[in-house]
Amino acid sequence: MQVICLDLEGVLVPEIWMEFADKTGIKELLATTRDIPDYKELMQQRLHFLDQHNLRLEDIRTVISSMSPLPGARNFLDQLRRQYQVIILSDTFYEFAGPLMEQLGWPTLFCHQLQVDQQGRVQDYVLRQADPKRNSVQALKKLNFTVYAAGDSYNDISMLDEADAGFLFKAPRNVVDQYPRFPLVTEYDELRQQFDNVQFRTVPEATGQQV
Amino acid sequence: MQVICLDLEGVLVPEIWMEFADKTGIKELLATTRDIPDYKELMQQRLHFLDQHNLRLEDIRTVISSMSPLPGARNFLDQLRRQYQVIILSDTFYEFAGPLMEQLGWPTLFCHQLQVDQQGRVQDYVLRQADPKRNSVQALKKLNFTVYAAGDSYNDISMLDEADAGFLFKAPRNVVDQYPRFPLVTEYDELRQQFDNVQFRTVPEATGQQV
Repeated sequence: MQVICLDLEGVLVPEIWMEFADKTGIKELLATTRDIPDYKELMQQRLHFLDQHNLRLEDIRTVISSMSPLPGARNFLDQLRRQYQVIILSDTFYEFAGPLMEQLGWPTLFCHQLQVDQQGRVQDYVLRQADPKRNSVQALKKLNFTVYAAGDSYNDISMLDEADAGFLFKAPRNVVDQYPRFPLVTEYDELRQQFDNVQFRTVPEATGQQV
Repeated sequence: MQVICLDLEGVLVPEIWMEFADKTGIKELLATTRDIPDYKELMQQRLHFLDQHNLRLEDIRTVISSMSPLPGARNFLDQLRRQYQVIILSDTFYEFAGPLMEQLGWPTLFCHQLQVDQQGRVQDYVLRQADPKRNSVQALKKLNFTVYAAGDSYNDISMLDEADAGFLFKAPRNVVDQYPRFPLVTEYDELRQQFDNVQFRTVPEATGQQV
């Protein structure tokens, strides 16, 4: 019994902040953890610029609604969900992801949350927990699921390590070079094949046992 | 951040074995744990009658494909998934549930598995773990989700107890009488309202914390 855990941004949809910066022309939102290594500082800067440009959650969601999943992502996911249980593990926020999740057919998403005031201004963010991707895979394994995972970035490594089988999908060169222990896959068809063919570590299963 | 856990049979789809017995006319498959309290014995009897009537997995799935979710279930679920993450917790088997899950838009399902031989004969079943519904809710809570749940039967009680808010949905009289601590709800609209209005126990959340 398998669950497949997929990263969202870079795997199924574009990088949301980057695309958002492009669509709104707010260059300051192009900054990533490569520019500002402290995530808290980076997020506070992002929220500051959203506020400065008077962008409320509704406006932000309108912009995100104009984005699309990556080409082929919906079809890949639709086919995958016929055979496996799929859970998206992401460090995005529910309020941002919604318009894209709708286009993906509302797969289950574990991510974080924004704090929005009554006027619709994004005031803060709430991380559901530290190292959420690793914790999620651990939780699923404790439920006796075999877990396969795919992601493209540093925040996916703990998920890929924890999974019974982990793959880098369309990962940038630096990530690929740093983590040669994960097979690199660049097409959805190939990723699907990898999932179907994986020789996973056997997990103990209760058989014919009373519930 | 909330996850809603729903029972499948009796809540979103008909009781699969009952409906299957009706559609095939195999009366012996009408037996439930009320008739044969030992689940293992009941399942072995069911598998025996499937085999006796020469029903292979493909035939079984064809019969199940002719079933439909309960009236209004798909719409209820579609609306719910716009607002909440939803995971179906069921004691059915993936191989049986598939045709009905397709009609429900492939929500995430945690259940059990059949063992099928190369000729497509159902040979045995594999329970993913004991007390799977309670364990699943516990796992989600450990991921810092608030969990609301709804079910209709004895095997849902541990899920309802473990959840931050639990509801009986269209439960039979004996279950309702035995578990007055759970509010009884009989319509999808009302269940949705209950989820939206619940005063849940506060769970600790990390705020503005670095991932």
